[in-house]
Amino acid sequence: MLTILRLNHRKKRDKRITTHCALVARAFGADKFVYTGDEDKAFEKGVKAVVGQWGGNFSVKYKKNAKKFLKEQNKKTIVNLTMYGLPIQNEINKIRKNKGLTIIIGGAKVPMDFYRLSHYNISITSQPHSEVMALGLFLDRYFAGRELVKRFKNAKIRIIPHSCGKLVKKGL
Amino acid sequence: MLTILRLNHRKKRDKRITTHCALVARAFGADKFVYTGDEDKAFEKGVKAVVGQWGGNFSVKYKKNAKKFLKEQNKKTIVNLTMYGLPIQNEINKIRKNKGLTIIIGGAKVPMDFYRLSHYNISITSQPHSEVMALGLFLDRYFAGRELVKRFKNAKIRIIPHSCGKLVKKGL
Repeated sequence: MLTILRLNHRKKRDKRITTHCALVARAFGADKFVYTGDEDKAFEKGVKAVVGQWGGNFSVKYKKNAKKFLKEQNKKTIVNLTMYGLPIQNEINKIRKNKGLTIIIGGAKVPMDFYRLSHYNISITSQPHSEVMALGLFLDRYFAGRELVKRFKNAKIRIIPHSCGKLVKKGL
Repeated sequence: MLTILRLNHRKKRDKRITTHCALVARAFGADKFVYTGDEDKAFEKGVKAVVGQWGGNFSVKYKKNAKKFLKEQNKKTIVNLTMYGLPIQNEINKIRKNKGLTIIIGGAKVPMDFYRLSHYNISITSQPHSEVMALGLFLDRYFAGRELVKRFKNAKIRIIPHSCGKLVKKGL
């Protein structure tokens, strides 16, 4: 089970970024998206609609207390994605040996407690960019690129790749 | 020269997503970020502030007319990132032979004209996710992971990777 924990979602400011994080999580092979901060039913509904159309078992859930949630994950390896952490390219082989992971993504100011609660603090470059990208690249390296050809079960819609057009199969 | 062309930026709705796209472009090795749609000085200022602090020569520029801009790029290979395109893993070796690239990223509805103006229409999975991620993963594959260790010249601030803390060098 691969779970993403998105810290401190702010309904107004973060809606699209958190949605992008969740869709990247799903497309790149995670199973579950847990978020804290503001509860946001519109965000959840949007993600669930994508799952309904495009398939798979990806789920999204609100939790009030991030630390409590992490402590309940006590058999799983916790990875905190932060620009201050150790480079992914040096650590991923070790991390990949763990089957269950909880991956933390936050905003600008994640309290040090989360660094200490994590087994790994991992950076995707040490430059400022995006939690959307950090999460996706982590999953890409974790799955060693295999996620790019992942098929989703129970899809109602599927794209047939094309060199110059839009080819969509519907009503599968 | 690696240029990103972000189509149809909407000042209110896209500010953070476009900012994430620009920061990913910079961190993952692109040189220039051109955008169309609403001109947005606050967005430009934010990106320029990051470049000023974290180094490198990344530039950001508004253009009114995307097609005109693309036609001026006539010696460069144009890549359109779209979930409908051919899978990156099958095409990247061919694309990598081109030194200059202009990479188009759009929103939901990119007109077919841009598909036809492009030499390659490329998908990063055929699932809905994020232009932030599509762009970053494209650059990652184009540079074959070397971008993860890129050093930025003239940086005033630099992070020293750490297993459990924040180590920052300032005033370089």
